[in-house]
Amino acid sequence: MDSKQTEISTLGEFGLIERLTKDFPINNKTTKLGVGDDAAILDYSELKSLVTTDLLLEGVHFDLRYVPLKHLGYKAAIVNFSDVYAMNGIPQQITVSLGISSRFTLEHIEEFYSGVKLACEIYGVDLVGGDTSASMTGLIISITCIGAAKEENIVLRSGAKESDLICVSGDLGAAYMGLQLLERENRVAADQTDFQPQFAGKEYILERQLKPEARRDIVEMLHANGIKPTSMIDVSDGLSSELLHICKSSNVGCRVYEEKIPIDYQTAIMAEEMNMNLYTAAMNGGEDYELLFTVPLTMHDQVKKIKGVSVIGYITKPELGAALVSNDGKEFELQAQGWNAFKP
Amino acid sequence: MDSKQTEISTLGEFGLIERLTKDFPINNKTTKLGVGDDAAILDYSELKSLVTTDLLLEGVHFDLRYVPLKHLGYKAAIVNFSDVYAMNGIPQQITVSLGISSRFTLEHIEEFYSGVKLACEIYGVDLVGGDTSASMTGLIISITCIGAAKEENIVLRSGAKESDLICVSGDLGAAYMGLQLLERENRVAADQTDFQPQFAGKEYILERQLKPEARRDIVEMLHANGIKPTSMIDVSDGLSSELLHICKSSNVGCRVYEEKIPIDYQTAIMAEEMNMNLYTAAMNGGEDYELLFTVPLTMHDQVKKIKGVSVIGYITKPELGAALVSNDGKEFELQAQGWNAFKP
Repeated sequence: MDSKQTEISTLGEFGLIERLTKDFPINNKTTKLGVGDDAAILDYSELKSLVTTDLLLEGVHFDLRYVPLKHLGYKAAIVNFSDVYAMNGIPQQITVSLGISSRFTLEHIEEFYSGVKLACEIYGVDLVGGDTSASMTGLIISITCIGAAKEENIVLRSGAKESDLICVSGDLGAAYMGLQLLERENRVAADQTDFQPQFAGKEYILERQLKPEARRDIVEMLHANGIKPTSMIDVSDGLSSELLHICKSSNVGCRVYEEKIPIDYQTAIMAEEMNMNLYTAAMNGGEDYELLFTVPLTMHDQVKKIKGVSVIGYITKPELGAALVSNDGKEFELQAQGWNAFKP
Repeated sequence: MDSKQTEISTLGEFGLIERLTKDFPINNKTTKLGVGDDAAILDYSELKSLVTTDLLLEGVHFDLRYVPLKHLGYKAAIVNFSDVYAMNGIPQQITVSLGISSRFTLEHIEEFYSGVKLACEIYGVDLVGGDTSASMTGLIISITCIGAAKEENIVLRSGAKESDLICVSGDLGAAYMGLQLLERENRVAADQTDFQPQFAGKEYILERQLKPEARRDIVEMLHANGIKPTSMIDVSDGLSSELLHICKSSNVGCRVYEEKIPIDYQTAIMAEEMNMNLYTAAMNGGEDYELLFTVPLTMHDQVKKIKGVSVIGYITKPELGAALVSNDGKEFELQAQGWNAFKP
């Protein structure tokens, strides 16, 4: 171990928490008391609170051979913020729990927290608690995020109606192709000494994988334009999977058009290079953290004006099922081929 | 694998969550929407919310060779409820995230959830979310609990004043001695075939380890008797460690008396049997989930009337430090010898 590195056992659990959390300011009026007692105290007197939680495991959700710890901390926070935005709410507080195996030093964990801190600063979220423990194997991250919303603004998955337009922010499949690239370069690196990975011209897909953003801007623009979606979800497991969630919760069907799916050119080039089907990446890749939402047909003109939003299809009667319409007009039933952590 | 057991991969993540959470009712008015969207929706309009979280890892916090999964689920919920009671609040919602390695079947995880459900029923708490994932090794449990309190009722660690009485509920050290017993019988079992563990007359210490309760009754009795503690914390890491937390947060010292520490006779017998120091178990054992609190000296008579509460000492000026006074009148400085998960 590098001699400048600090073994975590020298601090103990309470010393570690104190050290990691001391530089986090309190931003929100809803935070009455943060880290340091048995529980944090929150004040949501005029608002509803939204609660979401995510578990991220080394070797299952991330690979530290090519994910820097600071990026991991940033992303771990972002994926939770994204769930709150997907309810049309504003993230306010997070708790961060870590299981830490003995190969990590204090400096490693501080790197991780610096990413959490950056995400909290940018999105105006307060760290209010957490837990730390030794772990037998690898890094374990559990984050819970609490958000705020006026009751009348909350958007569920269950409100989509027949003839609603289906919209998605940003573009899809880039994070997945970024992951393919990282895994390929990592395989090559394992075989060669003095290996330099080839990332030029692929910055966008790498950033989408390593440092995704949550779409606060879309939530704000929808609000500023007086648009309240009828349903909304964030794209974490792939567009197909999320469309099926909306269809099931809302008891509707849908048609989305292959030609309307927004895809960045770097994603397309990478899929070509790796001989992979581009639409499989876009429909099932996941980790996009874009917002998928529906609006009444009458809002077509308003929603088209919002930069970075694509209209990709429409909601149908439930009997019609959920399908992708290919460029040659054929219909393919949507399958949730999103990531299943339990598949061997 | 038993042919009646169901591999989790056959359900996938969403199928698993649906299966596990379908029998949980909603109990609380503060729960507007539970499991099934990107986030749960809570309404804390007239109350403050309290948030606490715990991470429990197989091989670090529990050993499934002698902890039944149902008990584990119960305990995992209880330890979080206990943190909310320690703020003088009422637990309302929990989220349960699980990392599950391939040796667990659906039926195993349902066992765990049946324990969570029992705890939720008894304590009137709603399950509102969670996350599940495959894990590379063992079972990972992350629970977040949200509680409710009127602002004026919340009790922090930081309010203890000089001359306050130090009180603790129940008795201490039993859960620790129960763990020693389980570990001993497990070691013996490993060496023998047809081994029957010897648990007769030791039911209480086993129950304290395997199925602890959170002290809702104490919070209710304090309230009914018009007593608001000046500080409070739950005893999870051992009395010494918790006293030091109160002293540090409140900037005070304390004296507690060895002869006043409440200890059950089964705890004492087991310590004798295992040739261990009884007061080390009581002061540093941990996992008692009793409430440690301070009240003004003037409340002595009221607090003595509450069944199951012992007055064990008093708060001093900070200069006097924190000490245990032994039966022969010697003072021993309190050390936080509570459990440090990071010690190799």
